[in-house]
Amino acid sequence: MKTVHIGLLGFGVVGQGVWQLLQTNQEEISHQTGNKVTVKKILVRDPEKNRVLPAADPRLTTSWQTILQDAEIDVIVELMGGIEPAKQYITEALSAGKHVVTANKALLAQHGSELSRLAARRGVQLRYEASVAGGIPILQAIRESLCANRLTSIMGIVNGTTNYILSKMTQEKTTYEEALAEAQAKGYAEADPTADVEGFDAAHKLTILASLGFQTTVEFGQVYREGINSITPLDIEYAAELGYVIKLLAIARDLEGKIELRVHPTMIAAGHPLASVQDAYNAVYIQGNAVGDLMFYGKGAGDLPTASAVMGDVLNVAQHRNNDHAPTYPLAYQPNGRKVQSMDETTTAYYVRLLVKDIPGVLGRIATTFGNCGVSLSSVIQKGDADPVSLVFVTHRTREIAVQQAIKDIRLMDELVEVAGIIRVEDI
Amino acid sequence: MKTVHIGLLGFGVVGQGVWQLLQTNQEEISHQTGNKVTVKKILVRDPEKNRVLPAADPRLTTSWQTILQDAEIDVIVELMGGIEPAKQYITEALSAGKHVVTANKALLAQHGSELSRLAARRGVQLRYEASVAGGIPILQAIRESLCANRLTSIMGIVNGTTNYILSKMTQEKTTYEEALAEAQAKGYAEADPTADVEGFDAAHKLTILASLGFQTTVEFGQVYREGINSITPLDIEYAAELGYVIKLLAIARDLEGKIELRVHPTMIAAGHPLASVQDAYNAVYIQGNAVGDLMFYGKGAGDLPTASAVMGDVLNVAQHRNNDHAPTYPLAYQPNGRKVQSMDETTTAYYVRLLVKDIPGVLGRIATTFGNCGVSLSSVIQKGDADPVSLVFVTHRTREIAVQQAIKDIRLMDELVEVAGIIRVEDI
Repeated sequence: MKTVHIGLLGFGVVGQGVWQLLQTNQEEISHQTGNKVTVKKILVRDPEKNRVLPAADPRLTTSWQTILQDAEIDVIVELMGGIEPAKQYITEALSAGKHVVTANKALLAQHGSELSRLAARRGVQLRYEASVAGGIPILQAIRESLCANRLTSIMGIVNGTTNYILSKMTQEKTTYEEALAEAQAKGYAEADPTADVEGFDAAHKLTILASLGFQTTVEFGQVYREGINSITPLDIEYAAELGYVIKLLAIARDLEGKIELRVHPTMIAAGHPLASVQDAYNAVYIQGNAVGDLMFYGKGAGDLPTASAVMGDVLNVAQHRNNDHAPTYPLAYQPNGRKVQSMDETTTAYYVRLLVKDIPGVLGRIATTFGNCGVSLSSVIQKGDADPVSLVFVTHRTREIAVQQAIKDIRLMDELVEVAGIIRVEDI
Repeated sequence: MKTVHIGLLGFGVVGQGVWQLLQTNQEEISHQTGNKVTVKKILVRDPEKNRVLPAADPRLTTSWQTILQDAEIDVIVELMGGIEPAKQYITEALSAGKHVVTANKALLAQHGSELSRLAARRGVQLRYEASVAGGIPILQAIRESLCANRLTSIMGIVNGTTNYILSKMTQEKTTYEEALAEAQAKGYAEADPTADVEGFDAAHKLTILASLGFQTTVEFGQVYREGINSITPLDIEYAAELGYVIKLLAIARDLEGKIELRVHPTMIAAGHPLASVQDAYNAVYIQGNAVGDLMFYGKGAGDLPTASAVMGDVLNVAQHRNNDHAPTYPLAYQPNGRKVQSMDETTTAYYVRLLVKDIPGVLGRIATTFGNCGVSLSSVIQKGDADPVSLVFVTHRTREIAVQQAIKDIRLMDELVEVAGIIRVEDI
């Protein structure tokens, strides 16, 4: 039996999860993989902080150099998060010939190509299963199990916070603000929820998924991004009436040439497998040209689910220590990335909710405006006799720019009170 | 770039799928894996049969020895199905030091431990991703991505034919016979549907899943098995009323000591992710002690989805050609298998539908009989004033033997016309 010595950077929720997992499953791990795993050193900022290990534990250190220079440590597990100093430490670890396992999606989305080029040059492995969808083994599936496929689309519910908020709004008819407060109370959302609710976190994960899935260098800045904070209970109600559920989807499509990259609230058919993904669960829906439709569902965050992915990576790295043909997980590709479709040219269907003055002929004039912009309608709902009145339109698939032009024209109409909601509709 | 030479045994639907996949995705495969894959020889019974290759194609052969003795062939891909001669060919291939990839679930369920011992002795790989749930990469997930977990349960919809039939019966309120005929017309069911509808196929797959997932040698004969042919539209209707959906589930549970292995129609909550798996789709729901709940969903059969899994295996084998620590997929374990819980001792909830004469007090007498056997009830439905009348009971979780005793006692009651249906209910 060989021993894998790991150096753990960061000892927060996930770091302690890794520790706990090793206490619980060490025997299982040895039995299954023939490897024993030892945490040799743990980098912390403050050893006095209350953790599963006492401050005096000799494994705790505040010195990165002590870990970097420990020749026995094979694998660095980075769980600090943030860009610096994580980037510096990973760079130095790879340069020193150590394998690296990380869960740091923000870092990989912004500097993954540089780091993966360095790993390749140094002949070491850089793995990051936990960076996307927590415990769900989606990256190994894409990179190894599905390697005989050309993937055509990747669609994911990859942010648990927003899925929790949208689930609550749907199940309990609460407002966005109420659901967010509940998510914060339960620890699903942070005090400053921006990274989650505005889609940054999902866009980080989509950058990684698309790069690996389509074998192209994806720039994080190229992902179109829209958050969930403008979704109202009324939109959710109309969605249900139309047979849809609203989810924050991260969508990547291979358009044969260009690729499409976008994160936004999306209406999907209530019967679609992604529609039943509730609360803080994640799911990734993939289409491959041989395998067809696949979905992977599970916990996208949390100490032990994330630790499961981290340790899976560590053990896979160990299995390949002496293998020149170890599978790689590159985020850098030549030629340097495929073009990303501009959002204007993206084709999808749209739900548009307007508040208008209840004047005879208003519905006709709005419908005509859509038509003049080349947007054809598949459903219209007008209900009640309130003034202003709610008009809901669902379009057929059309280019974004045409819908935006129609909205621009509608905004000029005297009858318009408010463009109350625009949500894209995916027919998947 | 290295070339992997494969010898294909069998050139039916899946074999031709492999061929087609290689034509379509060769460039993709080389780009992703650095390997070129060539089909060097194909074993067929009758070269004249109409296929994607003309009879004169030099790769087609009726001689197994020609393939076995071809030193250039690294990997044997067995897609013939059936026990013999597949078993003999695989045995000879492994003995000759060739890696083997197979989709043959019946063979693996019955002789997998013997074959995997042989592969280990010869230092070659035996992989079989396509044998369970077609294109869904569930085995690599269990064996590699989740290797830091102790799995506690595996629950699968792993037979597309029965899921298609049950979906049709649910969606279109047809009888079992009508749905079966439709499945046969669409090619989802064979002329003799026994292997599918009586649960043999699902039991084969469960044998493989449980063996790999719980690291124990599982005997196919130890799997409890019940088919779907006694399910009626009325049961499906009652299930819906109670908030359930009926699925043929393959269930394996780790009871810490013993394991539980059973295939039978099961009522599951309509909101459970497995409940929305429709038509010929498959899904496997796993619980691990670190990762929590996971579900994998996709196409469980078909030429290209199955070929995707087969080629994934071939390419993974190639990646590990010179790796002494290649991940293995053993179906044989020491000590020789854990005890399997007897069905009598299995604990679950039950749906029991009785037809009884409409005599005052009959409901009370039946409820008392359940109580006398230690079975407590969670729901009772009595509807209408037909004679005989339908009585539906759902029990709390209880041991199988207690329910069977209650049914035995109820059968002795004069008021009983028929025990019309018993279906297990899983609260997962």
